[in-house]
Amino acid sequence: MSQKLNTPKGTRDFSSLELKKREYLLNVLKDCFKSFNFQEIQTPSFENLTTLTGKYGDDEDNLMFKILSSGDKIKKADIDAFKNNKLSKFSNSLSDKALRYDLTVPLSRFISQNLNDLSFPFKRFQTQLVWRAERPQRGRYREFLQCDVDIIGESNILQELECIKVYDSVFNRLGFPKVDLRINNRQILEGVSKLMKLETVTEIASVLDKTDKIGIDGVMKELKGRNLSDDSINLLKSLLDIKGTNQEKIENLRNIFDSNNIFLNGVDLLDEIIYTSQKFNLNNINIKVDLSLARGLSYYTGTIIEVSSPKEYEIGSIGGGGRYDDLVQKNNPKLSGFGISFGFDRIFMILDELRLFPSELNSSKSFLFLNFGLELDSILSYLDKLREKNITCELYPSNVKIKKQLDYANQKGIDYVVIIGDEEVKSNIFKLKNMKSGSQSSIDISNFLSEIERIS
Amino acid sequence: MSQKLNTPKGTRDFSSLELKKREYLLNVLKDCFKSFNFQEIQTPSFENLTTLTGKYGDDEDNLMFKILSSGDKIKKADIDAFKNNKLSKFSNSLSDKALRYDLTVPLSRFISQNLNDLSFPFKRFQTQLVWRAERPQRGRYREFLQCDVDIIGESNILQELECIKVYDSVFNRLGFPKVDLRINNRQILEGVSKLMKLETVTEIASVLDKTDKIGIDGVMKELKGRNLSDDSINLLKSLLDIKGTNQEKIENLRNIFDSNNIFLNGVDLLDEIIYTSQKFNLNNINIKVDLSLARGLSYYTGTIIEVSSPKEYEIGSIGGGGRYDDLVQKNNPKLSGFGISFGFDRIFMILDELRLFPSELNSSKSFLFLNFGLELDSILSYLDKLREKNITCELYPSNVKIKKQLDYANQKGIDYVVIIGDEEVKSNIFKLKNMKSGSQSSIDISNFLSEIERIS
Repeated sequence: MSQKLNTPKGTRDFSSLELKKREYLLNVLKDCFKSFNFQEIQTPSFENLTTLTGKYGDDEDNLMFKILSSGDKIKKADIDAFKNNKLSKFSNSLSDKALRYDLTVPLSRFISQNLNDLSFPFKRFQTQLVWRAERPQRGRYREFLQCDVDIIGESNILQELECIKVYDSVFNRLGFPKVDLRINNRQILEGVSKLMKLETVTEIASVLDKTDKIGIDGVMKELKGRNLSDDSINLLKSLLDIKGTNQEKIENLRNIFDSNNIFLNGVDLLDEIIYTSQKFNLNNINIKVDLSLARGLSYYTGTIIEVSSPKEYEIGSIGGGGRYDDLVQKNNPKLSGFGISFGFDRIFMILDELRLFPSELNSSKSFLFLNFGLELDSILSYLDKLREKNITCELYPSNVKIKKQLDYANQKGIDYVVIIGDEEVKSNIFKLKNMKSGSQSSIDISNFLSEIERIS
Repeated sequence: MSQKLNTPKGTRDFSSLELKKREYLLNVLKDCFKSFNFQEIQTPSFENLTTLTGKYGDDEDNLMFKILSSGDKIKKADIDAFKNNKLSKFSNSLSDKALRYDLTVPLSRFISQNLNDLSFPFKRFQTQLVWRAERPQRGRYREFLQCDVDIIGESNILQELECIKVYDSVFNRLGFPKVDLRINNRQILEGVSKLMKLETVTEIASVLDKTDKIGIDGVMKELKGRNLSDDSINLLKSLLDIKGTNQEKIENLRNIFDSNNIFLNGVDLLDEIIYTSQKFNLNNINIKVDLSLARGLSYYTGTIIEVSSPKEYEIGSIGGGGRYDDLVQKNNPKLSGFGISFGFDRIFMILDELRLFPSELNSSKSFLFLNFGLELDSILSYLDKLREKNITCELYPSNVKIKKQLDYANQKGIDYVVIIGDEEVKSNIFKLKNMKSGSQSSIDISNFLSEIERIS
């Protein structure tokens, strides 16, 4: 009995056609990153758990794909933890590695490991897979490609603006409609959290990030179920209620809230970015101050941004990033970093839906030599010569009925069929059949190479 | 206290320079595969364990990186198995997925899942990472890139020869010295195993594969420790003792051994491949019949081949492959496949050692605009225009001492520094400093774009 085999949940195979499209998109991204002189690095698919855990937040840590210890290491299984239903502890006793959850934490490990060989500010790009054990849904996979650029070792706002400009250039090159880039600063939220008597903004970050979907009332409702005073909740409401242009929002922030240093610093930075962005000739990006934007990952400490999908095809956020001051180890002070990420798979879906892929992803022609079971010598030497010129060609792999060989050519999208049978060998001509038009021509064999090169 | 962070054992980071070399090698491989009209596919990094296990052999199954079940699934842990020291069973109760061990078994799953959408013979190439929990050593990593081509659904020897030709073309394009390609047929070994009263050749495959290292005497010594009759051991010795040219070896095979069908079939296939290979104009490959070649993986059923590294830099095998008749599910008959693999990382080491990488992997020039803290408007628009033409350029990310900015340019290998300060703005010229030669020129600002384009 043949058993039905499948890809694991939330993962995908890619066909040749899909890969050509993916290659196009990846090249647009990489060319753009290179034009800004970001340098590429790659890191291993898995990292030691000590590198990864405690950086993202508890919920995120639980979404990592951990790698089961092998050999004798598995003897360290904490059976007591299992019996006491401490599954997380049990799980940690069985693993010391996990698949990459993002590209930022591996970057911070890379820098700390290569500190003496790098020059700062270090501008790197990285396009590699990441894995998250989330529930799969439209546009969300368990294995997906992330494309990141980061600047490490420089804390002024030119870095934020350069990365926003990278977004703008990529979307421009792809022919995207204009998209909104929402921006906020974690220090503003930290300042407000302090006024609310919270330890840190991460206590309310996940609720805040839902504002888009459930509205301010929804957020208020969720918060009322928690151990928060009415004063605190109203304070947050007055933050979310701030309306107006970017500049009006920033002014209102200064007017409404009692100042504390971290809050004021955040407002100043946001103000400076909004002001300076006007010099940056952004064509594809609307910058929108969004005071409800919090972003889940706990490593962010300053500016945070998120790019929405175009209104023409809404599929949630297609990129995001932020500043992190405490992620990259170096003895006092730590190296401040700012970085952004492109959601490759969602951008791919948008290109597909809005028909923005170039119509000709591969314009070179392919040739199939029919197999008549004759002596191979001359045909093989023709194949050699074409392949040396990177012309795509093949001999049908066995001597079967011509009908079957032509079916193969059609199914595979072959452009031309080359016919060199007994008759052709005798008369020193070969036949070339155009599979798209059906037309057939006879050509002197001495012109073989020049003729094929001409049409390929 | 800052903790020292590292890549996990047997894995590597790649710097920008290494990635440029890897990209060169990968492009040579892919261009060659495409010229033979193999179609690219990609599969997920992990597969269900039901897909992977039982195909490679028990030892290999134990070298897979399994993924720890997450959430409530971990409650299925088989604690009894743990207590009874059945670690493998315990381990299997904790996991239902594993990282790819090779690209062939995922291919067989891909085909079985997409049977109705594919046309056969199906020629695919795939260049993706694989993971093996082996002890790391020189040229052997736990995460490494495999580059495979396979032809599925056709069993005649043209497929073997086409793949051998792919090896030849790749090595030719890379400028490699000539390499040995050792060839054998599992059916010959199965036939001999039958004469030896063994169940299957896999019982002695791993010993046979050591012949290269420990010699025939070494093999005999290892076998004597096992439960084999002297007759059986002598029979195997007479196989390994066969010497001579390829044709002489094949003749001796026919003469020495009592015939059984599977054995004779294997000899005939080997004979036919050796004979036909002469038509294939192989420049970089010496085909050598090696009757001790067994290859570990248990899915091989016919021709098996292995490519040795060049004598100029010996690092073990740099590729291998074989025919598998029972791997790709389809209701009677199964689809026969033949495929080969390139050991990317070892080939990389050889290119590096023999200085075969092109000297100029990236010939385009890079430009750094010094940051004088002036109004950004005009500089930003210059950057925009250059980047639109994919010219690599950047503004130094902050207004620090010029010495520091020039150090950055030197460390990063910047080709030209662009100087537009107060003075330059006033006089409508800009200065261009060649960082390699140290020379500096003053150019009228109206010629900015044309001048940069000229030298980039």
